[in-house]
Formats: sequence, structure tokens, C-alpha cells
Amino acid sequence: MLVHGSWFGAWCFSSLAPLLTAKNITVVAPDLPGHAVGARFPASFSQRPLDANAFASEPSPLAGISLAQYVATILQTVDELAAAGYGPITLLGHSMAGVPITAAAEQAPGKIAKLIYLSAFMPVTANPVLGYLGLPQNAGSQVNSNILIGDPTMIGALRFDTNSPDTTYMANLKNAFSADSSALDWAAIAHMMQPDDPAQAYGTPTGATAANWGSVKRSYIGCTGDNIIPPALQQLFISEADALSPANKTDVHAFASSHLPFVSQPDALATLVASLVA
Amino acid sequence: MLVHGSWFGAWCFSSLAPLLTAKNITVVAPDLPGHAVGARFPASFSQRPLDANAFASEPSPLAGISLAQYVATILQTVDELAAAGYGPITLLGHSMAGVPITAAAEQAPGKIAKLIYLSAFMPVTANPVLGYLGLPQNAGSQVNSNILIGDPTMIGALRFDTNSPDTTYMANLKNAFSADSSALDWAAIAHMMQPDDPAQAYGTPTGATAANWGSVKRSYIGCTGDNIIPPALQQLFISEADALSPANKTDVHAFASSHLPFVSQPDALATLVASLVA
Repeated sequence: MLVHGSWFGAWCFSSLAPLLTAKNITVVAPDLPGHAVGARFPASFSQRPLDANAFASEPSPLAGISLAQYVATILQTVDELAAAGYGPITLLGHSMAGVPITAAAEQAPGKIAKLIYLSAFMPVTANPVLGYLGLPQNAGSQVNSNILIGDPTMIGALRFDTNSPDTTYMANLKNAFSADSSALDWAAIAHMMQPDDPAQAYGTPTGATAANWGSVKRSYIGCTGDNIIPPALQQLFISEADALSPANKTDVHAFASSHLPFVSQPDALATLVASLVA
Repeated sequence: MLVHGSWFGAWCFSSLAPLLTAKNITVVAPDLPGHAVGARFPASFSQRPLDANAFASEPSPLAGISLAQYVATILQTVDELAAAGYGPITLLGHSMAGVPITAAAEQAPGKIAKLIYLSAFMPVTANPVLGYLGLPQNAGSQVNSNILIGDPTMIGALRFDTNSPDTTYMANLKNAFSADSSALDWAAIAHMMQPDDPAQAYGTPTGATAANWGSVKRSYIGCTGDNIIPPALQQLFISEADALSPANKTDVHAFASSHLPFVSQPDALATLVASLVA
């Protein structure tokens, strides 16, 4: 199961998924609640020229979407697959999806054979992701005031202006997500991205324990040119995870790409992912 | 294999696909060339306020994309699936994708066990789809001058302003595609739709013959509330198909929905599709 990250939907995997299927891996990629065809938009987003003050302060219609809802979607799909006889089941989480796959494995470790974190958050302490964003290990992240609009804790979302006519803003957004893609490929991605991503998953601890989450095998694919979740922050998550479950350490693989390897290098990524699934 | 229609990508199937997987049907849904992460945009589309004259006349960056390219993507995926041992292979084409699945079956009838047309064009005469759009059977279609911008034969694309701030225009677009969805669901779909869809597939005959295409079993799911491809036009395609291959007639199923049943009724659609795959 491929689980997409923030501002994205299952659409981001449409190149990767058929490549995995051709390697005899059954793939499902659900949209998380509030994403893709479930996305909702602040009213100010569709007004142009943009009212910058309104857009920076309008509460997100996605503010109410919780980490528990993401986990429910994932575990429901796991149960449907298991009932149909599929297995073993591997969850791959990209970016923010590292949070719900961690929480899902904590809740149902016996149903999940393996976790693959793809340049993802892997928070297993009492700190939610928000607690990591101010750390020195995250200093290289380009998810900063150059692109983030409004206060996530006030509006209930991490917000970008994905329709911005400001070429500097859009270049900053591209450099953060996908410095290794072409300008034309990036324009298509930016078009499909949604402006708001629910803040709750960033503010909720996963509750990971050694006994449950720590019993599930895991791999970590760390994108070495990642400007969203920098390699130093990836390494912190890996260190903390290995400290929690020292007998079941993270299987780590470096991958030379930006934060979106399924855009820039789907074939190489498919080969690596196929080698890691349970 | 689920093949999306015009202005869409594989993203439109993200609810349907896991439901089919849970019914033990392996699903792949590739993006056709020039769609989703492969979409390209006229420069005038990103300028707001819109220069209406420029937007109505700017050549589409997708004008060069041919029906043959769609078919190549489909048949490459078929070959990859077959090489991996999957089969029998059913192609489902929604809307415009009826054209490339027809041409794919004509080229490789032995590789495709069944075709499912989901409120799709099914042109098997010398007329390309463009030749059908002026017929009385298409009079009910809401793809008309209320929403279509520019001359497709001049700009090389069928163009909508999917970012229009004009609420009447957007209501017309919704009524054409998805009268049975909520306003909020529709906003998410419109956000992900692309403004341009390549015109070539509309202007190229499929070349279907009784010997090749006509040898492949086919079902037609006709959406009874379809305002894009009206039931009368669906029926014309079915009649012409059955005239071409009278010994292998179309298995027809009515489905009470708009043109986007995977949005409004994914569960019922999954049940029907699962009953039809080879």
C-alpha cells in the first residue's frame, strides 16, 4: 500500500504503481481523508488577485481531519486486502505519511508485515512532528516562511499558495519539493497539489511503542537531496527509532533524489522498493 | 487496467481501484501521455485576470499528442502485465478513453480478453469522435459553447477554464460532468482537472475491424444521467458496434449516474465492474 504525503494524493504514485505491479507486487494507493478528490479549499484561495491577509488567516476547511482518520483509512484498506487473501502487507509512507503508517503499525502490528518510510517523518517519541520542525536537524528544510502561509496552529492547516502568479514563490516551492524535475513536470505537480494540508497529523504523537510498532520490520529510504525533510532530520528519526527498538533496527537506503523520487526517478525507485517489500 | 478520460488522470480512480483490488482484481491505472503529472498548460491559463482572447486562441502545448501515443502507453502496460504473468487482461476505458482502448484492441486483439466501455466513446466507423459531436444523438451533450473555449481544430485541444472565477461557468462545468456530486466534491475534481485535452484522439479514426477489434468481448456501462456523452449517443455507438460485429454483440448495462460514477457511486460501480471483468 502506497500512502501519499501532505498536499498530495494517490495521484503522485501513478508512474510508480504500474512499475511495481509489473514486478508482481499488488499495489493499492488510497487517498487519505481530505486529499485529492476529498480536498477542500479556503474560499480566499479561489479569489484572484489573492487577498493575502484573508488567505493567511482563513481557517482551513480541513482543520478537523485527524491522524486517527488517516489511520482508519489505512487499516480499513489493510483489512479489506487481508480479507481478500492478500499478504504479506507492506505499507509505504511518503513524507507526512510516515506519521499515519507509524500509528497504524502501533495499533495493528500483527496485520502489517513491513513499513517502508520514503523520505518520511518517523516520529516515535512523545514529540509530534511539529516538535521536530524547530530542531537544528531541520534547519535545511525549505518548508519555511518563504512558502508557508499563515500559522498552522491558528488556521488548522499547513498552507501554500499553489496557484501563485509570483514566479519567485513558485520557484521556492519547486526547489523545496522537486529541484530535480523539469519546470514543465513541476507545473503539472503544482497544479494538482492542494493548498491546505490538515495540521492535526503534525501535532499528534504516534504513540509508538517498542512492543507494538517496534515489532514490525522497517526500511527507510532517505532521499539525499531532500529539501523538505533534510537528511539530518531523517537521521534523527532513524536514531530515535533504533533507540526504541534496538533489536529491530532500521534498514536504511540512501536514494539520490529530491523529495519526490517517484517523479524524477520512478524506475530506479520501483527497483529499490520491490527489493524491500515483505 | 483502468484508463481515464479527457481532462482527467488516473487520479479519478483512486476510490474505485482499492474496491476492485479487494474483490481480487489486480488494478493498474496509468496516466495517458499529456495527463496528470504529464499535463501541460497554455501560458494564458495561469494569468489572472484571464485574457479571454489569448486563452481562446493560444495553441495547446498538448496539440502534438496523438492517439498512437495513448495506444502505445496502454499496450506497453499490457505487455508488462502479461510478462509478469497476469491475465486475462480487461481494459476499462472511461469517456474519451473508449477511443484508445478500441484502437489498442484493434492492434492487439490477442492480448486483450475484454473491453469495458464506461460511458465512453466507442467509434468503430471511419468517423472519428469529432464526426459524432454534431449529430442529433449528441444534442443533449453539455460539452458546448457554454464551457468549451476556443476552436479545438485551431488550438489542438479541447479547452476549459477549470480555474474560472465565474460561478455560472463553473456551475455549467459541474452540471456537464457531475450533476450528482456535492459542490465540495466537485470543487476538488475541478481543481485537479487540466484545462487542455489533446484534440488528436478526437480527430483520429480507431480503424476498428470486425476481424480484430470485433473479436474481443465487450461490455458497455451506460450512465443514464450522462450530460457529456448522452444516452442517445451511447446507443448509436452500441448499434454501430453491433452492426460491425453481429456475432459478438455488446453486453450493455445501464447505470444510474452522471458521467462520473466513480465519484458519486464507487461501491456500486465496483460491484458491477467486478462482475464484468474477464
